Amino acid sequence: MPAVNRTELTPLSFLERSALVYPGKTAIVDGDRRITYDRMAARTTRMANAMAASGLGPGDRVAFLCTNIPEMLIAHFAPALLGAVLVSVNVRLSPEEIRYILDHSGAKLLVGETHLLAGLAGIADRLATVSEIVGIDRTGAETGFPVTPFDEFLARGSDRPRPWEVDDEDRIIAINYTSGTTGRPKGVMFTHRGTYLNALGEIIHSRHSPDSVYLWTLPMFHCNGWCTTWGVTGIGGTHVCLPKVDPAEIWSLVDSEQVTHFNAAPTVLISLANAPEAHPFPRPVTITTAGAPPSPTIIEAMGNLGAEIVHMYGLTETYGPHTVCELQPGVPGMPVDERARFLARQGVSFIIAEPTRVVDDRMEDIPQDATALGEVVMRGNNVMKGYFDNPEATGEAFRGGYFHSGDIAVWHPDGYIDLRDRSKDIIISGGENISTIEVEKAIASHPAVLECAVIAVPHDRWGERPKAFVVRKAGRTASPHEIIDHVRDRIAAFKAPDEVEIVESLPKTSTGKIQKFVLRDREWKDHERRIN
Amino acid sequence: MPAVNRTELTPLSFLERSALVYPGKTAIVDGDRRITYDRMAARTTRMANAMAASGLGPGDRVAFLCTNIPEMLIAHFAPALLGAVLVSVNVRLSPEEIRYILDHSGAKLLVGETHLLAGLAGIADRLATVSEIVGIDRTGAETGFPVTPFDEFLARGSDRPRPWEVDDEDRIIAINYTSGTTGRPKGVMFTHRGTYLNALGEIIHSRHSPDSVYLWTLPMFHCNGWCTTWGVTGIGGTHVCLPKVDPAEIWSLVDSEQVTHFNAAPTVLISLANAPEAHPFPRPVTITTAGAPPSPTIIEAMGNLGAEIVHMYGLTETYGPHTVCELQPGVPGMPVDERARFLARQGVSFIIAEPTRVVDDRMEDIPQDATALGEVVMRGNNVMKGYFDNPEATGEAFRGGYFHSGDIAVWHPDGYIDLRDRSKDIIISGGENISTIEVEKAIASHPAVLECAVIAVPHDRWGERPKAFVVRKAGRTASPHEIIDHVRDRIAAFKAPDEVEIVESLPKTSTGKIQKFVLRDREWKDHERRIN
Repeated sequence: MPAVNRTELTPLSFLERSALVYPGKTAIVDGDRRITYDRMAARTTRMANAMAASGLGPGDRVAFLCTNIPEMLIAHFAPALLGAVLVSVNVRLSPEEIRYILDHSGAKLLVGETHLLAGLAGIADRLATVSEIVGIDRTGAETGFPVTPFDEFLARGSDRPRPWEVDDEDRIIAINYTSGTTGRPKGVMFTHRGTYLNALGEIIHSRHSPDSVYLWTLPMFHCNGWCTTWGVTGIGGTHVCLPKVDPAEIWSLVDSEQVTHFNAAPTVLISLANAPEAHPFPRPVTITTAGAPPSPTIIEAMGNLGAEIVHMYGLTETYGPHTVCELQPGVPGMPVDERARFLARQGVSFIIAEPTRVVDDRMEDIPQDATALGEVVMRGNNVMKGYFDNPEATGEAFRGGYFHSGDIAVWHPDGYIDLRDRSKDIIISGGENISTIEVEKAIASHPAVLECAVIAVPHDRWGERPKAFVVRKAGRTASPHEIIDHVRDRIAAFKAPDEVEIVESLPKTSTGKIQKFVLRDREWKDHERRIN
Repeated sequence: MPAVNRTELTPLSFLERSALVYPGKTAIVDGDRRITYDRMAARTTRMANAMAASGLGPGDRVAFLCTNIPEMLIAHFAPALLGAVLVSVNVRLSPEEIRYILDHSGAKLLVGETHLLAGLAGIADRLATVSEIVGIDRTGAETGFPVTPFDEFLARGSDRPRPWEVDDEDRIIAINYTSGTTGRPKGVMFTHRGTYLNALGEIIHSRHSPDSVYLWTLPMFHCNGWCTTWGVTGIGGTHVCLPKVDPAEIWSLVDSEQVTHFNAAPTVLISLANAPEAHPFPRPVTITTAGAPPSPTIIEAMGNLGAEIVHMYGLTETYGPHTVCELQPGVPGMPVDERARFLARQGVSFIIAEPTRVVDDRMEDIPQDATALGEVVMRGNNVMKGYFDNPEATGEAFRGGYFHSGDIAVWHPDGYIDLRDRSKDIIISGGENISTIEVEKAIASHPAVLECAVIAVPHDRWGERPKAFVVRKAGRTASPHEIIDHVRDRIAAFKAPDEVEIVESLPKTSTGKIQKFVLRDREWKDHERRIN
């Protein structure tokens, strides 16, 4: 008999509760379709039973390649109901990158939208661990290889209820692959306990209520939508699906569905504010933004339209947001420039997290003087369990008893952190990580390239974009355009540099190490920060 | 080295965070005094160190006999910082009852306000385990026996920081004594994990935010103020102390402190609505009520004044509130009578709790038909660890794998529970438990009493009050008034019956068992429920 006073923490209990409390309420809006909470729970049970009937069990990995469709939201609960593990795959990755993730995670099953699976035609027969591919056909797209239709897959499962519980709250619920500096993505393991607590944090800091109508501008495949997949379900709000970020569509849904909340990187907010459809929000909206500090322009524009901005910061390794720029008394009344300077800070830890620190190389706190630079480090229940099947990388990330973010910040006298630079060779573009090393490898594989260096440069829309500096081999004349095309053929298109500058030589140390900071100093000379 | 990704859950982290994030913000208002969050944390550290210097250590119990004063709020953190246990004592209990609690809990230290300690003059030299009594003098009251002045006690402690953490989240943080049916109060054990999670539940369901200004109408000694002591601290709101429930004072503080939230039994709301000072709230107020269903009159009156009512239900054994009457879409627009009928339900489990059930004697769910009666049972992280030093009572309360509330309810088709009666011989008067057996024992000790029965009768102000039916010994003429005085001399005054009805005989079964239901049927004949 289970203990009377102990329940393993799991987001499964969130869906169980909302199905009990709000059975007839709209859980998911998908175009003209409405899925109620009791249907969402029933479909979750059915999907879990179909997975079990397909040979999946506790600990097994199931990969999903989907945009923000109802099945993707349900995938945040169905594998968990088996004790299995969701692997959400970024739909913008190249086929080879996706193959790597499927192989590395050892996914037994791949479920994807047919129009996305179609891109995998070249690798579908080279998947080492996937025993079946299931296609969700919303567009009539052909995959070019045989897949199990989703309905046929579901038909294998029964509606027999499964308990909405997990045997151990430290069990893995999801693995999210994220690009690190080494080029190959690493699988960040989330636990039931961590996602449960971070989801409560999201509810509290984004001020969700049962009246929340949450628009899915953020991809669910990105860090499980910052745990909002679980949080909005827990509070009994309504999820509004948005398969593609399109400003006109967003404005239309904001009106028609009476949206109250969405999460988006500042880049999305810029497109929204500048869309011809922009107009005052019909009811107060809370926008939670992360990935880059919101600019004064954006804060002012969104405020004028009736939205309040909450600025959070975190990494995939911290279940998404880990800090929030809590407003201090007096901040709301400040002039917009001053307010924006305040809101641009990454802030302080979530209520469910341990205090975030900024440390030097010896793990000592740096002075809280808004000037000294140190690395942001975190610990607590919303730090990942580790990198899947990669104890070396986990040990390196956890050295000194804290997770090392690789982000360089000043620490304000009031304890707020404020990012200034990045120690890792990572570019964050539209909220997605791009490894400079990976881009450099792709460039270097061009036969005309002698050597190259890729850095982030500031970009109005995407925050940061990669820029490459290339030295060609003697006598070779490959154009920047040709090199960019070469890269696009090899890795995800969004990772290819927008600009390739042909140079005679790269700045180097006396020992021959490329001095990227020299390149960065030039490109960022008008900016206070070295990240955007 | 502690795990990077695991922190033991503890409300200590709430005060740590608020002191870091809001050091200069008012944490506590106490008349004209303002205590900021950094001071609150510093005083907590000082109090913990003073306790350590006085010989207290992990697991030791510390009793507090205080009204809602800053020291009482700080007592919710200081012993915990040592790994010690807070025993909050109801200030309305009789000296003998308090002596029992101090003895049973094995409290080493007693901290109390001198005007309350004065009542213990007769028992102060008979405390078996208490090695020291510390007096907080706010009124110049003499205790009549020697106590350590609070400042002198604090002076023993240093300001040396202690980590805001606990070594095991299942460690006991508090013991709350509650009257059961057997007359002697039982010590309900709360854990760090349970209080942490229930505090998050309070934040979410009472919709607290960092802007919360919370008025302490609810006694902190009552079930740790439903965990709001920890919750409001966690969100960084402001606590407004109120040592005594006085409607004029409440209305004055509501205005002067711009109160946004308070918790109170309906009886308090009735006095508020009927006070000459009643007027519209200067800003929207959320009132969380429990202990009895709010009446249509109260819902309407409070709504007209600008307050929204949240109805919760629970017991000391469930860390206070365990269920909340979540509004369904459409409820806010209902006519007030219909809305009140809906809001009178105890509702559904908290987001952090397991589903509440209503069961028959065989632990089977009763039909959800709004008619069948069953017992409300609960389980999950916010069910007590057990009764202190009372495994038999714990086993009995936990039979069948659930905590047995003793409350009888119907189950609505929509899954909401709705209390109808109580299987235990407990009267709930103004939110406090009164054991009918305890009152009967006190009455029976009068030399003129042959036998007696005590039941709850409905009361407009207190919800329920005890009424006694007494059969006198032949030839004896003790008056009702005399019997009431006799009881008041023996147990807490609020437990004495308001009315004693002298009868010739009590209704009994053929085997001689008193049929209280016959008495109840008569007294409650105009009521839909047998509880109020």
